[in-house]
Amino acid sequence: MANTLSQNVIERWGVYEVSCPGNSKGNPFTDYTIQGVFTHKNETVKVDGFYDGDGNYKVRFMPSYSGEYTYEITGSFSEKTFTGNFTVKEPSAGNHGPVRVANTFHFVYEDGTPFYPVGTTCYVWELQNEELQKKTLETLSKGYFNKIRFCIFPKHYDYNLNEPRSYPYEGKPMDSSVLNKTNFFQYMRAGKEEGNDWDFSRFNPKHFRHIEKCIASLCSLGIQADLIVMHPYDRWGFSRMTAEQDDLYWKYVIARFSAYRNVWWSLANEYDLMPQKKINDWERYASIICDKDPYSRLRSIHNCMPFYDYTRPWITHCCIQRQDIYKCAELTAEYRQRYKKPIVLDEIAYEGNIQHGWGNISGKEMVRRFWEAACRGGYAGHGETFMHPQDILWWSHGGGLHGDSPERLKFLQRILKETPVLGLAPMQGNWDEIIATVDQTIRTAEYYLYYFSFMHPSFHDFYFNDDWEYQVDVIDTWEMTIEDRGYFKGKFRIELPGKDLMAIRISKKNDAF
Amino acid sequence: MANTLSQNVIERWGVYEVSCPGNSKGNPFTDYTIQGVFTHKNETVKVDGFYDGDGNYKVRFMPSYSGEYTYEITGSFSEKTFTGNFTVKEPSAGNHGPVRVANTFHFVYEDGTPFYPVGTTCYVWELQNEELQKKTLETLSKGYFNKIRFCIFPKHYDYNLNEPRSYPYEGKPMDSSVLNKTNFFQYMRAGKEEGNDWDFSRFNPKHFRHIEKCIASLCSLGIQADLIVMHPYDRWGFSRMTAEQDDLYWKYVIARFSAYRNVWWSLANEYDLMPQKKINDWERYASIICDKDPYSRLRSIHNCMPFYDYTRPWITHCCIQRQDIYKCAELTAEYRQRYKKPIVLDEIAYEGNIQHGWGNISGKEMVRRFWEAACRGGYAGHGETFMHPQDILWWSHGGGLHGDSPERLKFLQRILKETPVLGLAPMQGNWDEIIATVDQTIRTAEYYLYYFSFMHPSFHDFYFNDDWEYQVDVIDTWEMTIEDRGYFKGKFRIELPGKDLMAIRISKKNDAF
Repeated sequence: MANTLSQNVIERWGVYEVSCPGNSKGNPFTDYTIQGVFTHKNETVKVDGFYDGDGNYKVRFMPSYSGEYTYEITGSFSEKTFTGNFTVKEPSAGNHGPVRVANTFHFVYEDGTPFYPVGTTCYVWELQNEELQKKTLETLSKGYFNKIRFCIFPKHYDYNLNEPRSYPYEGKPMDSSVLNKTNFFQYMRAGKEEGNDWDFSRFNPKHFRHIEKCIASLCSLGIQADLIVMHPYDRWGFSRMTAEQDDLYWKYVIARFSAYRNVWWSLANEYDLMPQKKINDWERYASIICDKDPYSRLRSIHNCMPFYDYTRPWITHCCIQRQDIYKCAELTAEYRQRYKKPIVLDEIAYEGNIQHGWGNISGKEMVRRFWEAACRGGYAGHGETFMHPQDILWWSHGGGLHGDSPERLKFLQRILKETPVLGLAPMQGNWDEIIATVDQTIRTAEYYLYYFSFMHPSFHDFYFNDDWEYQVDVIDTWEMTIEDRGYFKGKFRIELPGKDLMAIRISKKNDAF
Repeated sequence: MANTLSQNVIERWGVYEVSCPGNSKGNPFTDYTIQGVFTHKNETVKVDGFYDGDGNYKVRFMPSYSGEYTYEITGSFSEKTFTGNFTVKEPSAGNHGPVRVANTFHFVYEDGTPFYPVGTTCYVWELQNEELQKKTLETLSKGYFNKIRFCIFPKHYDYNLNEPRSYPYEGKPMDSSVLNKTNFFQYMRAGKEEGNDWDFSRFNPKHFRHIEKCIASLCSLGIQADLIVMHPYDRWGFSRMTAEQDDLYWKYVIARFSAYRNVWWSLANEYDLMPQKKINDWERYASIICDKDPYSRLRSIHNCMPFYDYTRPWITHCCIQRQDIYKCAELTAEYRQRYKKPIVLDEIAYEGNIQHGWGNISGKEMVRRFWEAACRGGYAGHGETFMHPQDILWWSHGGGLHGDSPERLKFLQRILKETPVLGLAPMQGNWDEIIATVDQTIRTAEYYLYYFSFMHPSFHDFYFNDDWEYQVDVIDTWEMTIEDRGYFKGKFRIELPGKDLMAIRISKKNDAF
């Protein structure tokens, strides 16, 4: 990652950073402008820069092509114009570029590699102490997940009443020594009047620099950073700023983070728990992103109860919290039909044992929900909320994982990666059949994934046609075994062990792929 | 049970039977009438009799009062009028009378004892060989269930292609040697044209006598006989008779069976799979029951897909098959609101491992669904479909039970019986709380049953008020343990083991009950 003007070579989809000294009188966060124009034979990209403190301004850019780039940095921050050039080489192994929507309901990396999201949520893992952050990254390095949702603002909520490692603004927080488990809800949404003292026009660059470091660490692990830009779990007043302050924040966030190829924008977690923000506000933030993020990173917004209108054109994919205690992933096909966008069920309850119904499902139920979503052509999200003697819960703090689901979700990711073409789609079978097939208008492969969920059949009968041979795998999604049963033709029966969470994968014997 | 004129004393709610010789020329099933009038100081009841073969006519009657009865039997079956009298004594232990609807959503026996249905389904257990029937009754004698659904007509369906022990009509069935597992569906609804040869105007009394014996055996075990009078699983043509033949059948069935206090009328199983019968037909059958059954036995009708209109006044309780693969018992409260009648979910899938989605849930899922229904103020039904080397599946044939749920359903029945007043009702709690309380307009007790279903909380916090003490039991609905945690007051926390299928029972310390 480039930190100075001196770097001359970066790789495609890396971050090129231009650092320029500039005016530090008054309020550099609001009083001056800075813009960069980056030029390649295939693209000319304008981006806003930002003030990074200590008289330093920065402009960041992600090149979409390899080859030669030139740039020009201008603005009122300096009387000088800064220019330069650099070379973009081909990406290194593991750098597949940013993730885009593809095939209506799915995702691919820019280089064409399919991306099958298997995400988790650790709301403020990056605002914990260094040791805990390190442990989180170690856990994440095991490859359970390829996407993580987390917040830019600190979080105030049950099991998470501590102060964060840093704040996004200059100033001082309220005295939190008065907090306890029973009065914490009254401090949510309390805002400035309760003793917070922030200057919402002056950011704390250290806070953002740290988050950038974390985004980069995730990137090097191949993990998408699904950034939650706003949220309601707040005792500091960050959720109750004015429209002007909000917009300043959005522009700063976009200028700093958008060049990182693994960034996704989640406008909010549980947007509907922030009654102080109206639909017009969310739409305005969306306009700012669309205007200021030159890379069109993935954009969505997460609900508590009512869904946001996912048909809005700026929303690239649905980010859904379940609305029903019993059914959610099971509704994936209906959501696909309704929204014609990728369905990412980012909150389907968490594996754990806390008192809340959203935080105490079993590992089996978590894994079942993931498979229900996957076999209906969508994607689920993980979280973990086990009671802990120091109140370190993965869902909020990261750390280690204690549940049974992560290994099985990694296994699911493997199965998804083995899909012959990009993405699964639900197929209509009998009422009791959950069948995924390949999601292609022109089918280049014949592939079926039968999932039996909570059902315990001891066999299943198949008939596709009399002519073709099909290779059959019996998958135990819980034990993570794949048993090759060989080739079948015509009517055939596959024996099953009469237990739950089984699947049968059927691929046409086909020289075409 | 009275078999002759000579019996002079029966117990209240027993069956009094008058047997009279009569005309056997022509077709005694259609050519003659027979009616009895039974008189007590509190009631005068008119009932139809029936021809029982061999020149014998019978009239059956269930007395609702103890004391002296007289009767008079008349009709074209004989030139004579038969009269007599008998004494009705108080019921013996275990005889609580017939079951009625009470408290809108629940059931009581006539003597006021609550009846909490925990039913099962063995469609044609009574048409199997003697040994198997005996085994079924032995199994039922263990007290797992207090209601059983079964058919009067034989059943033709997957795993049950054999001939029954007897037929309801004189004649001969089609040749079933051509049947196999793949062509059996084409024989369903085939009717007479495929080689059946029945006289639908002449019943086979042996068939009905045997069913009566079975009804009486169930009665002596304290089990309600939920008689399925019509059904679509047919290769003999019994589901495709004319309206006139149907009506004759209904009248014969009512005349024979209605005096048995444990009889419930289920007009059909999966009425909507019989397109040859229209709503007008079902309504006509209902009129016949209302007209001919002097005891107003419980009446309902069971669906496959669309519900029958349970608001129809003749329907005493809803008999529901789930419409959704994931949710059914969970909808009990909605059904209560919609229909204002007892909700009996008589088909919520069966514990087992056959290939069909309706027949391969786990014992845990079965028990979970029962508790979901119970804690929402309704009742679920059991069935079992495990693969068997001789194709003996409880759901169809009876025999032994192989699943994990029956013991747990017996345990649930115990818990239900311990409800301080008649019946549970759903109580609105937090979105993740499933709470039952007592279903009384005037609450004479304070009682709460919290059920945690698939959730795994490690504790739950309670607060009712500062003044009263509450006794708390922690119930493991799977391990069938009840742990008395003692008395609590004000705000209190109950620790839980962080596993599924747990419940907490809370009763106000109350001298009033």
